[in-house]
Amino acid sequence: LASGAASRVRRLIHNLRPAEIAHVLESIPKDPRIILWELVDPDDRGEVLLHVGDEVRSGLIKEMEAGELVALTENLDTDDLADLLQDLPGTVIHEVLRSMDLQNRHRLESVLSYSEDTAGGLMNVDTITVRADVSLDVVLRYLRLRGNLPDLTDSLMVVDRNDRYLGLLPLSSLLTTDPELSVAEVMVRDVEGIPAETTAVQVAKLFEDRDLISAPVIDQNGRLLGRITIDDVVDVIRDEADHSLMSMAGLNEEGDIFAPVFASTRRRSIWLGINLMTALLASWVIGLFEATLQQIVALAVLMPIVASMGGIAGSQTLTIVIRGLALNQIGKSNSRLLMTKELAVGALNGILWSVVVAVIAALWFQSAQVGIIIGAAIIINLAFAALAGFGIPLMLQRMGIDPALAGSVLLTTVTDVIGFLAFLGLGTIFLL
Amino acid sequence: LASGAASRVRRLIHNLRPAEIAHVLESIPKDPRIILWELVDPDDRGEVLLHVGDEVRSGLIKEMEAGELVALTENLDTDDLADLLQDLPGTVIHEVLRSMDLQNRHRLESVLSYSEDTAGGLMNVDTITVRADVSLDVVLRYLRLRGNLPDLTDSLMVVDRNDRYLGLLPLSSLLTTDPELSVAEVMVRDVEGIPAETTAVQVAKLFEDRDLISAPVIDQNGRLLGRITIDDVVDVIRDEADHSLMSMAGLNEEGDIFAPVFASTRRRSIWLGINLMTALLASWVIGLFEATLQQIVALAVLMPIVASMGGIAGSQTLTIVIRGLALNQIGKSNSRLLMTKELAVGALNGILWSVVVAVIAALWFQSAQVGIIIGAAIIINLAFAALAGFGIPLMLQRMGIDPALAGSVLLTTVTDVIGFLAFLGLGTIFLL
Repeated sequence: LASGAASRVRRLIHNLRPAEIAHVLESIPKDPRIILWELVDPDDRGEVLLHVGDEVRSGLIKEMEAGELVALTENLDTDDLADLLQDLPGTVIHEVLRSMDLQNRHRLESVLSYSEDTAGGLMNVDTITVRADVSLDVVLRYLRLRGNLPDLTDSLMVVDRNDRYLGLLPLSSLLTTDPELSVAEVMVRDVEGIPAETTAVQVAKLFEDRDLISAPVIDQNGRLLGRITIDDVVDVIRDEADHSLMSMAGLNEEGDIFAPVFASTRRRSIWLGINLMTALLASWVIGLFEATLQQIVALAVLMPIVASMGGIAGSQTLTIVIRGLALNQIGKSNSRLLMTKELAVGALNGILWSVVVAVIAALWFQSAQVGIIIGAAIIINLAFAALAGFGIPLMLQRMGIDPALAGSVLLTTVTDVIGFLAFLGLGTIFLL
Repeated sequence: LASGAASRVRRLIHNLRPAEIAHVLESIPKDPRIILWELVDPDDRGEVLLHVGDEVRSGLIKEMEAGELVALTENLDTDDLADLLQDLPGTVIHEVLRSMDLQNRHRLESVLSYSEDTAGGLMNVDTITVRADVSLDVVLRYLRLRGNLPDLTDSLMVVDRNDRYLGLLPLSSLLTTDPELSVAEVMVRDVEGIPAETTAVQVAKLFEDRDLISAPVIDQNGRLLGRITIDDVVDVIRDEADHSLMSMAGLNEEGDIFAPVFASTRRRSIWLGINLMTALLASWVIGLFEATLQQIVALAVLMPIVASMGGIAGSQTLTIVIRGLALNQIGKSNSRLLMTKELAVGALNGILWSVVVAVIAALWFQSAQVGIIIGAAIIINLAFAALAGFGIPLMLQRMGIDPALAGSVLLTTVTDVIGFLAFLGLGTIFLL
């Protein structure tokens, strides 16, 4: 870029928020991305890095020198710094920790001791705490003295002398209640502290259900560790949803859409390889019926219909169950009922479409027998598809495997194998 | 339920938030759902109805009498009331409007005049406005006089005498700044008003990028209409993500997982019917090669592999593009580059896996020719799969059709037809 253009671009990005700059960086290929990155205001760089996907982030970090990396950590919240730190080279981490004052280092260490996917990993430690026994007037004077509040502060945290969490003091109550009252009289007690080990997904559910903006995080002894704010929860919700969608196609939601061709090829080829095994298994089943196919070629023509109808019906059940599990809608008490329902839907749709396909096949090949056989095979396959679409994700979850990732391959294996086996098997028995 | 059990359950649900009750209602079948619904505190019913999916909601509304329905609208915010109103019977709507005072009716009408999926449809009208020329001290005294603030109020809206939006006055500034200063000196000017016609998805993007808790909604003349709060935005984000996932299996994200069997069967059978047409088209293509298949039965055994590899590779590209479009990552300027990349990945994976499959097929059927033909067919199909996975969603979007809904059927049609055509066509030319 010419230097005139560079300064124009610099001015342009200066008007964007970090998340928006991150968005632009993710939407362009690697070379212009690095040029643009150089033009981002150094003060914004830390925030921008937090908003790009893992893959883009590590690419940008690789381009920077240690000194620059240390500098960009300076403006970050503790929770954000904790996230970023894990991606930085060891020497830089050392440098960052050394440059912090003792209090901040302790705070950072407290966040780092929890996994990124838990309440402890999501929390900020820049919490303003007050005691229950002081009056609102004291709090008001303290805040005015302090001069500013951390971002997204909608309430102060009320703690006892041992730092144990007692309740929330909303800013709106501070503004609308008689200042003579004590904090204890005004504070909200029904927002419970979130244990630091709570998973991020559960935290998100809590925020959604209770319309929270921020919530306290506590340790096993009820001591206040920090607070989680809605902006981080929104990221969790977005990631979680992306994860189901991308996993079902064997993709990673943190991937870079402009990743180098070789890297993308390698990652996706693993998925193709796994699916090839499914396809080979299906072919092997077909191969068992070579003699039949040689005599009745109509079976070869029609067999993809049986497998495909099973695959589609099964993937509907699978998607419902995967989403139900993610939203915690499916538990022990209702899973049996849901299975009965899915089986009934599968059976009814099986009967309906088997009749349609049977008529088409019978007319096409002028054989009532071919029609009856494909009809029966479809009913069988749709029943198995419902069972598999329901059972596979539950089984995977129990085994600790992500149902969104492995579910669709396993399902296709079942519907292909059962579909070909039923159709060609019935054909061999009744048509030869 | 015995009356003792009923009162226990009633106490139990009394401790749950409306969103949590909604969650329970969605997780149980219809009959117990109605029994449980009767036990929900009448004051909570409006909120609960807002949190269940469309289908569960209309089922519950059908069970209630007009008087009960009017009563449950009384505790709702205007934006929520506007959402709910559209599902109520005409006589109830009339009654609700008649029971409101003039100011509230005007507010409701202003929300109702915008579509549910726009900033206008998402907004609340319970906004607290202040003038720019008064001092903070006046504002503080006004708030204390008022006694409480609407939920999720993190800032007041600053307007001029014509109600035109000027900026935000955060509660935190009110608490930390010198009360002698004027509103104009303290207010935040860089949060722009959101035009009421902005789509909900764009609003969500704005909230995510700027970490907002609430934002002003304005009309064409810049006049303040209301405010959007983060809780409604979180719902938009959740729905949007669910929508992509569910649509790809031909499902509706508002559906009831315990919908009656017949209703579910009908809805899903449409999707099976559409997919049957794809399968029939594929069978028709195979049928063109009946003579070939009769002579070389190996082709019948192997042909599903070609179609399946194309389907998997294509669905990866499709998912990336559908997500990229939803996140606005793909535009005119980079789409060509992305297509080149996807084609390159498709070609490389095609070459890689075609070799693997060719070797397996050649060994299996003791024929180098069969191996070469299936390899070539896979390369051809993966290239078309990349093109289709990329082009179909872009084309659908341009036509105003939801790519998540129609994309996968169209893609499978392409990969099946091209796969069978390439493999059986090459087989006919070179093996007969």
